[in-house]
Amino acid sequence: MSSKITPNIVSPPKKIKVGILGATGTVGQRFITLLSDHPWFIIEALGASERSKGKRYREAVKWKQTIPLGGLGLGGIGTSETEKISSTDLRSDDGRVGDLIVKGCIPEEFKTCQLVFSGLDADVAGDIESAFRSANISLFSNAKNYRRDPHVPLVVPLVNPSHFSIIPQQQRLHSPSLSKGFIVTNANCSTTGYVIPLAALEKAFGPIESVLVTTMQAISGAGYPGVPSLDILGNVVPYIGGEEEKIEWETLKILGGITDSETEFDKNGIPLKTFDMHQAGGRPALRVSASCNRVPVVDGHMECVSLRFHRRPPPSPQQVREALSAFTPEVQTLGCPSAPRKAIEVFEEPDRPQPRLDVKGTHNGAGVSVGRVRQCQVLDIKFVVLSDNVSIGAATSSIINAEYAVLKGVVS
Amino acid sequence: MSSKITPNIVSPPKKIKVGILGATGTVGQRFITLLSDHPWFIIEALGASERSKGKRYREAVKWKQTIPLGGLGLGGIGTSETEKISSTDLRSDDGRVGDLIVKGCIPEEFKTCQLVFSGLDADVAGDIESAFRSANISLFSNAKNYRRDPHVPLVVPLVNPSHFSIIPQQQRLHSPSLSKGFIVTNANCSTTGYVIPLAALEKAFGPIESVLVTTMQAISGAGYPGVPSLDILGNVVPYIGGEEEKIEWETLKILGGITDSETEFDKNGIPLKTFDMHQAGGRPALRVSASCNRVPVVDGHMECVSLRFHRRPPPSPQQVREALSAFTPEVQTLGCPSAPRKAIEVFEEPDRPQPRLDVKGTHNGAGVSVGRVRQCQVLDIKFVVLSDNVSIGAATSSIINAEYAVLKGVVS
Amino acid sequence: MSSKITPNIVSPPKKIKVGILGATGTVGQRFITLLSDHPWFIIEALGASERSKGKRYREAVKWKQTIPLGGLGLGGIGTSETEKISSTDLRSDDGRVGDLIVKGCIPEEFKTCQLVFSGLDADVAGDIESAFRSANISLFSNAKNYRRDPHVPLVVPLVNPSHFSIIPQQQRLHSPSLSKGFIVTNANCSTTGYVIPLAALEKAFGPIESVLVTTMQAISGAGYPGVPSLDILGNVVPYIGGEEEKIEWETLKILGGITDSETEFDKNGIPLKTFDMHQAGGRPALRVSASCNRVPVVDGHMECVSLRFHRRPPPSPQQVREALSAFTPEVQTLGCPSAPRKAIEVFEEPDRPQPRLDVKGTHNGAGVSVGRVRQCQVLDIKFVVLSDNVSIGAATSSIINAEYAVLKGVVS
Amino acid sequence: MSSKITPNIVSPPKKIKVGILGATGTVGQRFITLLSDHPWFIIEALGASERSKGKRYREAVKWKQTIPLGGLGLGGIGTSETEKISSTDLRSDDGRVGDLIVKGCIPEEFKTCQLVFSGLDADVAGDIESAFRSANISLFSNAKNYRRDPHVPLVVPLVNPSHFSIIPQQQRLHSPSLSKGFIVTNANCSTTGYVIPLAALEKAFGPIESVLVTTMQAISGAGYPGVPSLDILGNVVPYIGGEEEKIEWETLKILGGITDSETEFDKNGIPLKTFDMHQAGGRPALRVSASCNRVPVVDGHMECVSLRFHRRPPPSPQQVREALSAFTPEVQTLGCPSAPRKAIEVFEEPDRPQPRLDVKGTHNGAGVSVGRVRQCQVLDIKFVVLSDNVSIGAATSSIINAEYAVLKGVVS
Repeated sequence: MSSKITPNIVSPPKKIKVGILGATGTVGQRFITLLSDHPWFIIEALGASERSKGKRYREAVKWKQTIPLGGLGLGGIGTSETEKISSTDLRSDDGRVGDLIVKGCIPEEFKTCQLVFSGLDADVAGDIESAFRSANISLFSNAKNYRRDPHVPLVVPLVNPSHFSIIPQQQRLHSPSLSKGFIVTNANCSTTGYVIPLAALEKAFGPIESVLVTTMQAISGAGYPGVPSLDILGNVVPYIGGEEEKIEWETLKILGGITDSETEFDKNGIPLKTFDMHQAGGRPALRVSASCNRVPVVDGHMECVSLRFHRRPPPSPQQVREALSAFTPEVQTLGCPSAPRKAIEVFEEPDRPQPRLDVKGTHNGAGVSVGRVRQCQVLDIKFVVLSDNVSIGAATSSIINAEYAVLKGVVS
Repeated sequence: MSSKITPNIVSPPKKIKVGILGATGTVGQRFITLLSDHPWFIIEALGASERSKGKRYREAVKWKQTIPLGGLGLGGIGTSETEKISSTDLRSDDGRVGDLIVKGCIPEEFKTCQLVFSGLDADVAGDIESAFRSANISLFSNAKNYRRDPHVPLVVPLVNPSHFSIIPQQQRLHSPSLSKGFIVTNANCSTTGYVIPLAALEKAFGPIESVLVTTMQAISGAGYPGVPSLDILGNVVPYIGGEEEKIEWETLKILGGITDSETEFDKNGIPLKTFDMHQAGGRPALRVSASCNRVPVVDGHMECVSLRFHRRPPPSPQQVREALSAFTPEVQTLGCPSAPRKAIEVFEEPDRPQPRLDVKGTHNGAGVSVGRVRQCQVLDIKFVVLSDNVSIGAATSSIINAEYAVLKGVVS
Repeated sequence: MSSKITPNIVSPPKKIKVGILGATGTVGQRFITLLSDHPWFIIEALGASERSKGKRYREAVKWKQTIPLGGLGLGGIGTSETEKISSTDLRSDDGRVGDLIVKGCIPEEFKTCQLVFSGLDADVAGDIESAFRSANISLFSNAKNYRRDPHVPLVVPLVNPSHFSIIPQQQRLHSPSLSKGFIVTNANCSTTGYVIPLAALEKAFGPIESVLVTTMQAISGAGYPGVPSLDILGNVVPYIGGEEEKIEWETLKILGGITDSETEFDKNGIPLKTFDMHQAGGRPALRVSASCNRVPVVDGHMECVSLRFHRRPPPSPQQVREALSAFTPEVQTLGCPSAPRKAIEVFEEPDRPQPRLDVKGTHNGAGVSVGRVRQCQVLDIKFVVLSDNVSIGAATSSIINAEYAVLKGVVS
Repeated sequence: MSSKITPNIVSPPKKIKVGILGATGTVGQRFITLLSDHPWFIIEALGASERSKGKRYREAVKWKQTIPLGGLGLGGIGTSETEKISSTDLRSDDGRVGDLIVKGCIPEEFKTCQLVFSGLDADVAGDIESAFRSANISLFSNAKNYRRDPHVPLVVPLVNPSHFSIIPQQQRLHSPSLSKGFIVTNANCSTTGYVIPLAALEKAFGPIESVLVTTMQAISGAGYPGVPSLDILGNVVPYIGGEEEKIEWETLKILGGITDSETEFDKNGIPLKTFDMHQAGGRPALRVSASCNRVPVVDGHMECVSLRFHRRPPPSPQQVREALSAFTPEVQTLGCPSAPRKAIEVFEEPDRPQPRLDVKGTHNGAGVSVGRVRQCQVLDIKFVVLSDNVSIGAATSSIINAEYAVLKGVVS
């Protein structure tokens, strides 16, 4: 836990107005909590369903966060001391998020936003997000609807922000073509948590050949009302609908590269870029097998991972520990303000990490924790990874993605 | 869930007096609960620590079972209608287990017992159990102390009661040799649960090559006071001391055969029998990798299992389901009264089994439940197994072992 | 816990066909579980919503009981050995409740039933139950809709079955008047549990003047899906909508008598009978103050009760203990088969009763448990009472009410 | 929730070196967490048992806080920007609490401390705390041992810091008399939480006549290992040894005044000061009745309170709400840095406060939350109060007491 890097903070861009879709839901509440003291982003507009439209946010929402809504500001508080508006001061001024009037989820209401976050439910996200993109709005979505779209990057910001490079193609293929609008999605919470150490290990030791992951997932991953208490109190449910499939294919898209397609071309005959799902391309295949369980934990997905490398002999547990601890994603060196100071915290204690004690870690849930790195008698290495499913597993990933896009000039 | 067998009930032996060591502990309480209406066994003597000695059992014990102690009888209630004493009648007569005077754990106090069960803690079980064996008493132990002993069988009654065949050697090698005394142990609770479906699959499809098992274990597995509530409420602890090692080597001893040693001989030069831990012998090696977690569940160990067969091609999920459901252990056909009517209940519902709903099953926790049988993308097959750690995972196994020993004439 | 009575079992009536409305819901599943081995009642018809109509029950229901549906019979199994059909036998014959075809909740479908139980949700129970009564069907309802009706008795079977005497008036006032149809309701679960010891104390020591009750209620009291896990895991919610009001007025109706009204008359000028809600009549007023909390417990409502008697000096804690333990309700002496052998179990241990250990008690949840009887520094006496909210607090009360009605000839 | 006061911050005193006894225990860990960024107090010495003596704190402790030990500093960080050392900086310098060498709990080791906090267990606190006082050390104790001592103030800092006035008598009566040494204790956690609103109401409406309180207490109140998980998971235990008695008499000592005794005198014939336990003095008697329950909640004691005032007519619920919200304790106006900005947060939502969402509130657990203020049908008013048992219920109270003593010159 020693070699921390000092992030290379770039001079913060000027204030950026952002909107939040699905603002009254579980993920929307997390977006608000996280953005309320963001240095760049200023909450400009909140969108929710017809039922909430026109109400003040504090009246529209059933607030379920442990941080009281009352004191939350609108963000854009800067990072230097002179710029900083303390959250204390915010409590007594007008800039409180609870006072905003909730809007409908239509692009016209978000014209003044430079980018929009979506915490929409999957049953409505498809049409709404498409409409926002068509209205030339940059959209960072936590919903699953466009994750499989071959032109939409599925970005875990600590892993594959390079996949942003497909956005120009996404914009060019839209009809009419777009100058600013696009959709970027982040991954499913259980995929996000465990793919970060996988990426660290592939970076250090080359391709992984196979992974077996067994999850023990928190109830907050199912939203609200989500899991009925009669199903989970003092119980384990060995099934989460669609979750295992998501982990299995999302991992392939995230860890794969982007290559020119050999079979698809645009109207000018130029090869389309395509995600390398390990069906082809330079890297060898990766096999993933997931077993997903729901456990009576509020926040924090635990995942028991066993994996086998292509490299023979494989790295030792100590080499794995060091590689995980040293992993420094690009979003960190680039200076994304919400990136964790340390991507992967490696525990030496035999009984850690644990959700209740370690879910937030030292990085407000933006990094992940790994423990119990040891040899696997069947594959090569096994360990446990804990991730904060409502932070890096959801809204935090969207926010870092947006920060990356700003620093890279993808959002202007 | 259809093809149940009708057990071939033998005529019950005459009443058999039994003792229980560690009677006030968690496992001891389970022995008492289970034996209180046993058809053959009559609770004759209870042994506990000095602190409890001389007290009535009801005063010595901090009873933690959901079945009230008040109404529990002494067992030996027969199986035919004429013989049967209903538990209702027992409530008003004198034969109540709560009235027994607790004895010290010394063999002299258990002279009238034909066999003794041990629910002792590991820190005292070693010496006490050895003393009982030396006193020519047949001992069925739930403690871990003698599990690794090369002359002590480690018997999961639904899997390897054939290992009882090593007992004559155990008796002969004792000095002086024993006519009746021996020690048989049952396995660790998390091993017991998952090795039953493994045995069923090896019987149907031949040897397994490798197994990955990730457990989610109930707090009752740690006894009382056991796991502090601050450690487990709303939490998962990804570590149980020594548990993974136990699963890994116990599986090898249980699923292995007994062969004549090529290197060890008794004083007459006769080869000693030895457990085939897959280091040699006819069967190919088996690799086992376990990851153990504690979860906030009271009773019922869940285990996610992935495995690979030697046989190519491997059986299909449907063949696996059928083989599991059809598995009929010898203790069942032989007529052990505590054997489950069905060893493995196979669920078709996608979200079952679950500890809270299914731990007792239709067999009072003497069988196990398997669900979610499906292909594994890395190995061949994966499924989840639920076992009642305080029943088949502990006292119930000892009791079925004793029943088997009685029916086989090992205990007379 | 000594002076148990031997119930005076009357010769069982001939088999009685019963129906269950709301059969797929939480309360309906409890009705089925309890009736599946009832000595008199035979499950003849199951009613549920349009969505379930026409399906086999096993396919229509999301079964959430710990007793598997597979083995449940149809009841009517008698009480003598010759008559008894063991549940084991039932597993292999045709009479299984899972095979029944679910009907719609219309009276025509229940013509062959001699009485009907209702586990309907309140949002549909009003119209359906009224239609059943009008169709001259005897209805025993667990729903709240008619509890406040001045002509409908609100009966906790261990307390006020004498209130059945108002049924002839209910039938006479119906237009057209009814020969067999009526509605009887049981009380809210949290009222039922604590009113039983209150009744025992009023019987022994005369009227109570005031009661303060603070509840800690199980999640199963809210049905399924009921309480979201995010609201209750590791939490206490100090509010249950409408619950405090229910306890406060239901107690008055249940503990009050029935008197001739001085202000209401039927068309013949005969005074109508009315429930003495302590506004008038012989007994002095009773004041009730309730505070209701939801706690993360699956089954079993705990209630801390403090009360003051009219009698000065009040009885001592020991006198209270004895009176509670000696309480023998009429349903018990009359021989209702589902009545508990002991209505109130009094614990001497300082830390009992507890939901997890004691909720079922020795009477399958049909009685209640009281502990910690001691002086109150503000009122007279305080104690804690535990009741099984899904048994005596719900379906079991309806069933005992029906048994009482059969034995009294109210249902023929 | 509007009328917040701006605390009148005095210029902070110069740095004050403090010691912590019982530093490895649950309460000791809380002291460390809270003091690690305290503006005045600097952690100078940590004391623990022989087992820990001589080890670095990070090696001696089994750290169970959600804030990682790694980054915690030693406090004394000032309040102005120039003085402030951000916790970020502390991570990389030497001043980390984990690096301190643990000492034995003997006064000689704490000579350089200006005051000492005690989080000792009751079984050792008696002798050790007495020795520290005799060594002329100012001791602020969370242990129960001296709470009943007639010369030791029992101070809930938001209620009765005026009781510090008895300290000179405590020092004078010591042999030899003390110039600086004394013991001050804070109250039991469940007393502390509910006595704060009682004090607010007595201040506004005059004396209370009787209080009935039913608690639902968190497991962290029992320390570590504390409550076995088998006792509390999915359960309620209606008993906490000694807790009800503590609430009943501590309330009287805290809410009573200090008067000159009419029967006790010092050697000069001067009347001793004595706590008015409502047996005499100007104020009328107060009767308290408590029922204590343990519930499966990690942090946060919920208490359902019903009370009756002497004043007739009593205040309305709305008046009570306003008085609670307006309550401003002296520690707040005086500028104790750890005092909450608002002592009592009053919730209007019907289902709040709840432990999981509200335990920390906006004041890091230093204030309490009250909700559901309404009429009581038996007494006058009822409400629920939530307090953070590990903060205001324990270490935070000791710290505010010490801050008060510093500002008042009791500690120099």
